[in-house]
Amino acid sequence: MAQRAGVSIGTASKALNGRGNLRAETRARVLRAADALGFEPNALARSLLAGRSFTVGLLTADSFGRFSIPVLLGAEDALGEGRVSVFLCDVRGDPEREHRYLRTLLSRRVDGIIVTGRRVDPRPPVSKDLPVPVVYAMTQSEDRQDLSVLPDDEGGGYLAGEHLVAIGRLKIGHITGPERFACSRRRANGAITALAEADLQLAGGEVLFGEWSEGWGREAAASLLEREPATDAIFCGSDQIARGVADHLRETGRRVPDDVALVGFDNWDVMAESCRPPLSTVDPNLTELGRVAARELLAAIEGGSTGGVRTVAANLCVRQSTSALAGPLAGAETSLGLPAG
Amino acid sequence: MAQRAGVSIGTASKALNGRGNLRAETRARVLRAADALGFEPNALARSLLAGRSFTVGLLTADSFGRFSIPVLLGAEDALGEGRVSVFLCDVRGDPEREHRYLRTLLSRRVDGIIVTGRRVDPRPPVSKDLPVPVVYAMTQSEDRQDLSVLPDDEGGGYLAGEHLVAIGRLKIGHITGPERFACSRRRANGAITALAEADLQLAGGEVLFGEWSEGWGREAAASLLEREPATDAIFCGSDQIARGVADHLRETGRRVPDDVALVGFDNWDVMAESCRPPLSTVDPNLTELGRVAARELLAAIEGGSTGGVRTVAANLCVRQSTSALAGPLAGAETSLGLPAG
Repeated sequence: MAQRAGVSIGTASKALNGRGNLRAETRARVLRAADALGFEPNALARSLLAGRSFTVGLLTADSFGRFSIPVLLGAEDALGEGRVSVFLCDVRGDPEREHRYLRTLLSRRVDGIIVTGRRVDPRPPVSKDLPVPVVYAMTQSEDRQDLSVLPDDEGGGYLAGEHLVAIGRLKIGHITGPERFACSRRRANGAITALAEADLQLAGGEVLFGEWSEGWGREAAASLLEREPATDAIFCGSDQIARGVADHLRETGRRVPDDVALVGFDNWDVMAESCRPPLSTVDPNLTELGRVAARELLAAIEGGSTGGVRTVAANLCVRQSTSALAGPLAGAETSLGLPAG
Repeated sequence: MAQRAGVSIGTASKALNGRGNLRAETRARVLRAADALGFEPNALARSLLAGRSFTVGLLTADSFGRFSIPVLLGAEDALGEGRVSVFLCDVRGDPEREHRYLRTLLSRRVDGIIVTGRRVDPRPPVSKDLPVPVVYAMTQSEDRQDLSVLPDDEGGGYLAGEHLVAIGRLKIGHITGPERFACSRRRANGAITALAEADLQLAGGEVLFGEWSEGWGREAAASLLEREPATDAIFCGSDQIARGVADHLRETGRRVPDDVALVGFDNWDVMAESCRPPLSTVDPNLTELGRVAARELLAAIEGGSTGGVRTVAANLCVRQSTSALAGPLAGAETSLGLPAG
């Protein structure tokens, strides 16, 4: 089979066992060759030989929702490439249930566990002294010895601020979710840093912290425009908030982006594409985050474990809410060259 | 342990093995007792004794999206109650990948497979002559020997029509997705039946088939009101469409529900609650659908398999888009007594 795929036996073994740092193309070639030859090692025999079950548990801290689903799918994708199967465990915010799932996973001899979920603050480790490695994805363990993979909220906020500066906006406001969320504060910090580099300060003088809702977007937009009528751009901490802002702007006769440019956060397709006009927004790359967490777990299973925090870069997805501008700065967006969804 | 839980040994065994039709409360009591006693049968020993692996594969036909996620979570919940673990397999619309996953699942000796996904038409069976039972959830197998669990789209459409009739509306229009979708046609049929029972016909004379988008909702609402200016209610085939309709009504000065009452379909929380006003909508109970599919699979594993189609009833979730009415018929909604979310 290695011969058929044109690779060494070591490479074929890595591809089949999901180890090593192979190029996706190489891994795919080996797996195609294995399929063509009907090579399907009996799972039990394989695990006996390897001392591994080639299974991993994917456990939510709270419940799988809109934000953890992309992480889950990314992890499943990266693990599946290495023929590692995923046990799905939806804890639904119930500590007893989490405890029970952990025991079931250990009883099934999983090789490792990914813990995901969306929390305001770092969470306690799922358990001390587990016999298998654990990686936290989109949630952070209180124990800095554990590895946590997080979105780069600050970098994402910076991208939004930088973009609005690049298209020539001078009075940029920021409307976001509750201040108690670390992600709200980090997104705000990133945007403030980008503005400061252009010698700008937030329009209205401060971040408008509130709720993750369209209603708050409408309310805060009214308040911001009263305080600073010359506001020419608004960065919002979520696409839902941005949608409320867009509705308020339209209903009070302001054109987007001509009068006020608008950037959201999440790149939640339905929300961003239904916005009038379609919304430029920061994509936190949650599916990639899931893939990174899975690869980190596979590395940890191989003994290459490290702790600490690893962030996954965001990117900016430009749509009409910032890109329909005329003038000498209009070229700035196209240089970002990002796909629209 | 049976003693501690106050049940017979047979009942305890059923609860631990996820068999039989126990009350949720009984099952929970047994599992609590098992936990308290630290009873955790080694998974391997248990499967050798039982000739079962107590694992099930959950495979998407296309990719896990907004509609298949609740099904998945419902299935995981029902299987987890019986301590059956779920392998997650996201096929992403790739037939080769589906084939590979099937082989992996069989190699892992799963006891059964749930196939889910959202398709326009019935799909071919995943494979002929599989050694384990398969249940299709929210997707239908072409082979009528297979069991498919589907939402009751026709019943849901009927509920919407019946509700609008009950609150005294006489000119009820229907705006929905593409006609090629069986679910569009079924929802329309259900509504038309409810109207016919009250000697009513659709406002505008026909179903407005189009797209699953807010844009289509806005466009179709304009067209319907031009054709039939006295339209006093609109039932929409999705919450997204309904949201577009609500925007159009507000922007053309019509009050919801006073002038035009509005019902959506999906009970997609974010969409329904962000609608202005919040949207009354049909809930297809997709999480319950997942639970039913899981229980059917467990029954099939026990040898109680049957084929054909089983539907899961929808219910109506009433919010302000139909309930803020004055007048003698206002009591009709409260009798539905359904939770708002």
